[in-house]
Amino acid sequence: MTAYTQLSAEALQKKYDECKKKYDQYVAKGLKLDMSRGKPGADQLALSNALQNTLSPDDYIAEDGTDCRNYGGVDGIPEMKKIFADLMDVRLDEVFVGGNASLTLMYESVISFCLKDKGKRKFLCPSPGYDRHFAITEYLGVDMIPIPMTPDGPDMDAVRQHVTNPAVAGIWCVPVFSNPQGVVYSDEIIKEMAALKPAAEDFRIFWDNAYIAHAFDGKPLKTANILRECEKQKAYDMPFVFTSFSKISFSGAGVCAMAASPANLAKMRNHMIVQIIGPDKLNQLRHVRFFKDIEGIYSHMEKHAEILRHKFAVVLDALDAELKGKDIGSWLSPKGGYFVSFETLPGCAKRTVALCAEAGLVMTPAGATYPYGHDPQDSDIRIAPTFPSLEQLEQAMALFCVAVELAAVEKLLDPTVPYLQSNL
Amino acid sequence: MTAYTQLSAEALQKKYDECKKKYDQYVAKGLKLDMSRGKPGADQLALSNALQNTLSPDDYIAEDGTDCRNYGGVDGIPEMKKIFADLMDVRLDEVFVGGNASLTLMYESVISFCLKDKGKRKFLCPSPGYDRHFAITEYLGVDMIPIPMTPDGPDMDAVRQHVTNPAVAGIWCVPVFSNPQGVVYSDEIIKEMAALKPAAEDFRIFWDNAYIAHAFDGKPLKTANILRECEKQKAYDMPFVFTSFSKISFSGAGVCAMAASPANLAKMRNHMIVQIIGPDKLNQLRHVRFFKDIEGIYSHMEKHAEILRHKFAVVLDALDAELKGKDIGSWLSPKGGYFVSFETLPGCAKRTVALCAEAGLVMTPAGATYPYGHDPQDSDIRIAPTFPSLEQLEQAMALFCVAVELAAVEKLLDPTVPYLQSNL
Repeated sequence: MTAYTQLSAEALQKKYDECKKKYDQYVAKGLKLDMSRGKPGADQLALSNALQNTLSPDDYIAEDGTDCRNYGGVDGIPEMKKIFADLMDVRLDEVFVGGNASLTLMYESVISFCLKDKGKRKFLCPSPGYDRHFAITEYLGVDMIPIPMTPDGPDMDAVRQHVTNPAVAGIWCVPVFSNPQGVVYSDEIIKEMAALKPAAEDFRIFWDNAYIAHAFDGKPLKTANILRECEKQKAYDMPFVFTSFSKISFSGAGVCAMAASPANLAKMRNHMIVQIIGPDKLNQLRHVRFFKDIEGIYSHMEKHAEILRHKFAVVLDALDAELKGKDIGSWLSPKGGYFVSFETLPGCAKRTVALCAEAGLVMTPAGATYPYGHDPQDSDIRIAPTFPSLEQLEQAMALFCVAVELAAVEKLLDPTVPYLQSNL
Repeated sequence: MTAYTQLSAEALQKKYDECKKKYDQYVAKGLKLDMSRGKPGADQLALSNALQNTLSPDDYIAEDGTDCRNYGGVDGIPEMKKIFADLMDVRLDEVFVGGNASLTLMYESVISFCLKDKGKRKFLCPSPGYDRHFAITEYLGVDMIPIPMTPDGPDMDAVRQHVTNPAVAGIWCVPVFSNPQGVVYSDEIIKEMAALKPAAEDFRIFWDNAYIAHAFDGKPLKTANILRECEKQKAYDMPFVFTSFSKISFSGAGVCAMAASPANLAKMRNHMIVQIIGPDKLNQLRHVRFFKDIEGIYSHMEKHAEILRHKFAVVLDALDAELKGKDIGSWLSPKGGYFVSFETLPGCAKRTVALCAEAGLVMTPAGATYPYGHDPQDSDIRIAPTFPSLEQLEQAMALFCVAVELAAVEKLLDPTVPYLQSNL
């Protein structure tokens, strides 16, 4: 396979004609496909269907005597805390259990810890990253600074440089199977993160461990523990760890939690109690009865892994078969998580996504993985293969590869083509 | 019965000795009683126990095809909206369904609609009122202005006067069976509220209809509809109506909703989507299956009413039997809701609550029903009779009446006694 970047204009034109023909055939099919969001598939959700009637009518008392039907308990029942403590490998008094959305805990933590009477603040945003993290800081008026990602985690030299600025109040991290690249932060980077000496004394690490138990081999992944590492560095109040059952049980009806120092959690309780008497304790009890303990979580995650392995194989096999060696894109092969991040030639991401859309395939908008939706290279595209069926996924990936190729050949033929709009 | 205020010093001293003796007998009993919070009793919660396994494992699709197990739907499933629309007597497109806490919707509405780049704001607080309303505005740095309550609702002359100030951004109202007095706003007052012409164009009425279906006769109560009245006054964006199932199904695991103009709800959706992908739709579906429709809600509320009638009768009978005619306190007899508001002689509320506490009866802190916990008369005490059993309630009310009497006699004997601390 010759790299397209080495082809003559004539050879490129031939490639273009072939590609355009293939692409037009997809357009003619009138497909309706979606690889835009990290939603579990119906087969994954079905693994937890029995959750729904796990609680019998007379089962509502928690182990400490709490009536889960009534008001009270802003930070969760003890047996739910125990499972989250085991999952995050932290102590019981370091756990705060929330409602169905860890996003809410992140949002409220940013407000409560980083935005109190301090003027304009800034957040570090390893990019590509999670669009909903960036949406929180953008909405709250926080300036966002992109930080390059390496295959082992954020570029720590860049991080260290920026935290000398006292306006820098936090950093968004997805340390395990990062969204969208699937990068697992190395223990070295985790330790460097804990060893940061930020100028802002209220600087916080937002450690979104959404994929903590989501390896495709179905096995628990052990990495350095940010809370313990920070404690060793006498920076125990610096990290907030978040996780949830959104991709373990039900995405809309799970339970979430955060882990932090007891001092941080005391402040968090005071903040949350103003806006909610407490999260849904019956849903906590329901999850406790269904999973029983951390071993129950792990054996459940093996079933998810079995499903996801096949879906990610479709994505990676298609990329290998259709694009390998053509030098028009690159990607990592994640070992877990919910996404594959695809890098087009510079300036081709928006065009590729537009081509997909015109042929009936919805992708996450190009740029969404960067702060303010601005990918300076216009090259990152997030592929979310979990929601479509295997058959839909095969179609979607075949179309995606054609779109990547067509956009790349267009660009190589005429680098002045305005790629920000569709120009078919 | 001679009014105590008419007694001689000698007669008062005799009353004091009798009272003190009775009180000391209560102290000796070492009671552990609680009338502090508006929590449903276990018998009320048991009315909804069957909710827990109402959903079979294969029942998760809403009527519009939404998979309630997955992400999405920031404002609720259609069939849940329908029940709330019927309950609040509003249109479907005026309903936003939230999670388990209407308090969260109130908190976020205040932030989203009243605090955007406007400098210091003020809220009107009909008092006595709900301490958690006041906690929200206090936490958010909003100045609170108490507004006197009448037996028909807030003093509207005072309200009209204050809304000429453009810093006044909102008013907290509990229009039906108000917390704590049980006042039902008259239709005239509701119409006057809708006819307000506030100087602040973003002024909002926070209409917490928490007890919308909570009459002790078990029948739906019809009052003027604030949303319709405001629409007639071309002030459709002014009111936010809130309600929840917290005192219909489970207090910790219900569903809440708000009603407002579609323009307000569009803004609310944009605000909420940053912090949560959506509320728990399975819990909505569970409630829909259990109650079926508005008639199901009403017939369920008849069962609550049957329980609550007995509890409120204990409270009102005790007050009548022990305190009537003594001129040392006054109270209204609510026809629904969760509270009785008791007015001691001026300067006796904190002392009365302290006396209760020292004898083992926890009451809501005196002053809590006023902004900043400051009751200028030190006279309002909120009685919450729903959580204790009937037997506990009888004991608690007997003790409460003795404490009221003792504090009053102390005060009448020596008006200089410092009543803010316990002085036993």
